[in-house]
Amino acid sequence: MEFTIQQIAAMLGGEIKGESNGKINMLAKIQDAKKGQIAFLSNPKYENFIYTTQASAVIISKSFVPKKEITSTLILVDDPYLSFTVLLEEYHKLLSFQKSGIEEPSFIGSNSTIGKNIYRGAFSYIGNDVKIGDNVKIYPYTFIGDHVEVGNNTILHPGTKLYADTKVGNNCVIHAGTVIGSDGFGFAPQADGTYKTIPQLGNVIIEDDVTIGGNTVIDCATLFGDSTIIRKGVKLDNLIQIAHNVEVGKNTVIAAQAGISGSSKVGENSIIGGQVGIAGHLVIANNTGIGAQAGISKSIKEEGQKIIGYPAFDVINYFKSYAVFKKLPDLNQRLRELEKKVYGSDYSVNKSLTSEAAE
Amino acid sequence: MEFTIQQIAAMLGGEIKGESNGKINMLAKIQDAKKGQIAFLSNPKYENFIYTTQASAVIISKSFVPKKEITSTLILVDDPYLSFTVLLEEYHKLLSFQKSGIEEPSFIGSNSTIGKNIYRGAFSYIGNDVKIGDNVKIYPYTFIGDHVEVGNNTILHPGTKLYADTKVGNNCVIHAGTVIGSDGFGFAPQADGTYKTIPQLGNVIIEDDVTIGGNTVIDCATLFGDSTIIRKGVKLDNLIQIAHNVEVGKNTVIAAQAGISGSSKVGENSIIGGQVGIAGHLVIANNTGIGAQAGISKSIKEEGQKIIGYPAFDVINYFKSYAVFKKLPDLNQRLRELEKKVYGSDYSVNKSLTSEAAE
Amino acid sequence: MEFTIQQIAAMLGGEIKGESNGKINMLAKIQDAKKGQIAFLSNPKYENFIYTTQASAVIISKSFVPKKEITSTLILVDDPYLSFTVLLEEYHKLLSFQKSGIEEPSFIGSNSTIGKNIYRGAFSYIGNDVKIGDNVKIYPYTFIGDHVEVGNNTILHPGTKLYADTKVGNNCVIHAGTVIGSDGFGFAPQADGTYKTIPQLGNVIIEDDVTIGGNTVIDCATLFGDSTIIRKGVKLDNLIQIAHNVEVGKNTVIAAQAGISGSSKVGENSIIGGQVGIAGHLVIANNTGIGAQAGISKSIKEEGQKIIGYPAFDVINYFKSYAVFKKLPDLNQRLRELEKKVYGSDYSVNKSLTSEAAE
Repeated sequence: MEFTIQQIAAMLGGEIKGESNGKINMLAKIQDAKKGQIAFLSNPKYENFIYTTQASAVIISKSFVPKKEITSTLILVDDPYLSFTVLLEEYHKLLSFQKSGIEEPSFIGSNSTIGKNIYRGAFSYIGNDVKIGDNVKIYPYTFIGDHVEVGNNTILHPGTKLYADTKVGNNCVIHAGTVIGSDGFGFAPQADGTYKTIPQLGNVIIEDDVTIGGNTVIDCATLFGDSTIIRKGVKLDNLIQIAHNVEVGKNTVIAAQAGISGSSKVGENSIIGGQVGIAGHLVIANNTGIGAQAGISKSIKEEGQKIIGYPAFDVINYFKSYAVFKKLPDLNQRLRELEKKVYGSDYSVNKSLTSEAAE
Repeated sequence: MEFTIQQIAAMLGGEIKGESNGKINMLAKIQDAKKGQIAFLSNPKYENFIYTTQASAVIISKSFVPKKEITSTLILVDDPYLSFTVLLEEYHKLLSFQKSGIEEPSFIGSNSTIGKNIYRGAFSYIGNDVKIGDNVKIYPYTFIGDHVEVGNNTILHPGTKLYADTKVGNNCVIHAGTVIGSDGFGFAPQADGTYKTIPQLGNVIIEDDVTIGGNTVIDCATLFGDSTIIRKGVKLDNLIQIAHNVEVGKNTVIAAQAGISGSSKVGENSIIGGQVGIAGHLVIANNTGIGAQAGISKSIKEEGQKIIGYPAFDVINYFKSYAVFKKLPDLNQRLRELEKKVYGSDYSVNKSLTSEAAE
Repeated sequence: MEFTIQQIAAMLGGEIKGESNGKINMLAKIQDAKKGQIAFLSNPKYENFIYTTQASAVIISKSFVPKKEITSTLILVDDPYLSFTVLLEEYHKLLSFQKSGIEEPSFIGSNSTIGKNIYRGAFSYIGNDVKIGDNVKIYPYTFIGDHVEVGNNTILHPGTKLYADTKVGNNCVIHAGTVIGSDGFGFAPQADGTYKTIPQLGNVIIEDDVTIGGNTVIDCATLFGDSTIIRKGVKLDNLIQIAHNVEVGKNTVIAAQAGISGSSKVGENSIIGGQVGIAGHLVIANNTGIGAQAGISKSIKEEGQKIIGYPAFDVINYFKSYAVFKKLPDLNQRLRELEKKVYGSDYSVNKSLTSEAAE
């Protein structure tokens, strides 16, 4: 795969400054780039590299004013970072890694319909009454249970497991090892201390344009006809836990290892940090920002809040409190000094605290 | 699958009030239910829906006194929620998703014995010297290593991996992607900074009636003849880490993403919240309740405690302390005011704290 | 598999005291050992068992002076624990669980080269242009994408997934369900609230002597030519998240369920506790110790620190502050008493705090 600088400039709608016939066969970082490669400069911190890079071409801002001579051909654009991203994407599409066709052995049950231009990897499994759209990629070890529906252009990476009755929309990407539709964690305590399993009969609905990382788990809803729902445009990272009957609102982003307990509803356009835990039966308002490792034990009613801590509260106030927390032994000591001064000889209270605190 | 209201009432031992020949083909929530569906009313919060629901039948308490007219047929029982659960379970058993027979290709090694009425999914793998009981369901991509034993009525969902020598009891359910018997995390530090792997030769024993969620990992014990043990009736959620030589006591419930470090013993009938971490070599008493995200660094000797925090202590006291934590900048300011008042003009101590805290 | 005590002593370079022809067929703990088994005594706590054990042989320190008569044969060595470990390792190598050969069906693409003495389990998948070294074990359901390289003596347990272009070194062990090379979590926010996926074109490099637990996820780097790197001798536990462009330094050990965000560099010889979270774009110095569940939000520049908390700081100071935290309601009450005493009748400030804190 090789392009001329001119072809790339055309792809990006950019203006060429310098030699336009040079050949480009790889993308690289400006500090590492060699002949035949293209890089970009966006962050002024890296400006020095533009004068020394061996890149055949550099994507750069129209407004850039060079301080020294540059040997690379420049492609002038409005937003170099965005342009580089576009290029990456085009490149990605062309990558030889792209798969198509059917590898054998693979398994398909009865009464299932499959769209056009599909990749079905070796050892992939499609159950009964399944509907798969066009341009879907089903990598090896993908399990697609009975009655599952998968929309167009969706990619199921190796070892994705879709339990029976799951619905996945268009343009979704699900990474390796992710489990969708496993039983919700529902058990009714019995008088003798044992638990009776509450059958989990609902399903999971993944809407369009959702990306899910690797080894994440999304449980099905409890009641038949109910769904755990991941709305359009949601981005879930790796190793996330989504319990039964949860709903994650449109365009919300959740970082790795976060967990959402049963029946909680997370609003739209929210950002949830890594390792966050959200208790069950809560409602989280739109545009909420939750800091990493926070624990959410109450509903968040007001939109646009940024919270942290366990239980979480306003992030600025958390850090103010935490600054004092780090000085608590001093503060305790100051209080003790003051008590001595004020109470004088009759001082005796709470002496224990200071010694314990020093342990 | 369709039942008459009379058949359902008989199944539940309930009394019918209204039309008993109506046909039921689905379970639903009272607020959503339509003709042909059955719902239940247990929580008084939802009482209003009983007067407007289109459900053909509603399961309700014998002691319920209606305030208005009800059009649905009522099935009177002692505990509507319990009855609905029974119904769900019966329904589940009948679901068409139930699998049986052998799908090909599947793999079976030498000298393994398989019980009656088994489902062996395509691409399932059974090693050598394996013993499988009756009515076991082995979904696609289940790996059953050499010398493994699986009891009767157990379900192994897609991608379950049982390392060699694992024992799983009767009536267990293991969800997709869960790994049982991987090596414990044991490494001996060497003088040159590298680590020597300590071979992990024990196994994992899962007793009867255990349910395990998706993508959980349970490591084997270190010494040959030793076992990591999950006792009868334990319920483990998704993405849980159980390290080598851990023992989880009877009927204990552990929520998602919790982790238990090597050689710790968790008592019976305990409830462990999501994302909890338990350090190694501890003993946790029976009937302990551990709040979400807590970190346990010491053994819990007294039964029946409820704890939280890092390190965890009594939950009521934690929340009292945390309430003051949230006001720490105020408290610090109050102390400063008092110092000014008491020390007067010679006040100079710890001024730095207040300014830092305000950063 | 059976050895004489003499054979074992020779293997360990130990001196025999007692009967040397006894047969040993199993390793056991000193308190449980029976005839035909060998145990070790290292911790003085267990000394009593040496006088009562039924073990045929016990590995013990040269410097041990018995207080009573011992019936077992002793094998005298410098370091009994180390010797027992060596024995375990030898034993492990001999275990009948060791696999070799090719099981069918298995899949191999075009232009891939495979070394000598390989195990390729049923349902294993090897893509195109793959290079596999000698003595590699590829268990069932292992996915090896295009252009992947795997060194000599490496073990890939069931369900390991290596995305295209991943490099794995020599003598590595990767446990079941682990995903290597999945897309980094990179999305560019758009004006309309949606996110545009940033293509992830780099790869993952796992150097020699690395062990990785089960169901861990390691994302690939973003730019083509860039790598997420796990350096020589690193030990990763189960369910860990390693984001795009992370680098983990030589001989660093990371416990289960920890997560490292994008582009952070962790130094060498560090120990990171379970459920720790490290934010993105940080640098963690060599020899850092991070306590369980800590949250790291700033780079750690000085080597050899031990930290904990969220955000993390020095572990000793954390515990001092936490000791006062547990007494905060008392401290607040003491401050209130002092205020009453000092301000007398004009006391009115902050009364609200005490009552709220008591809620």
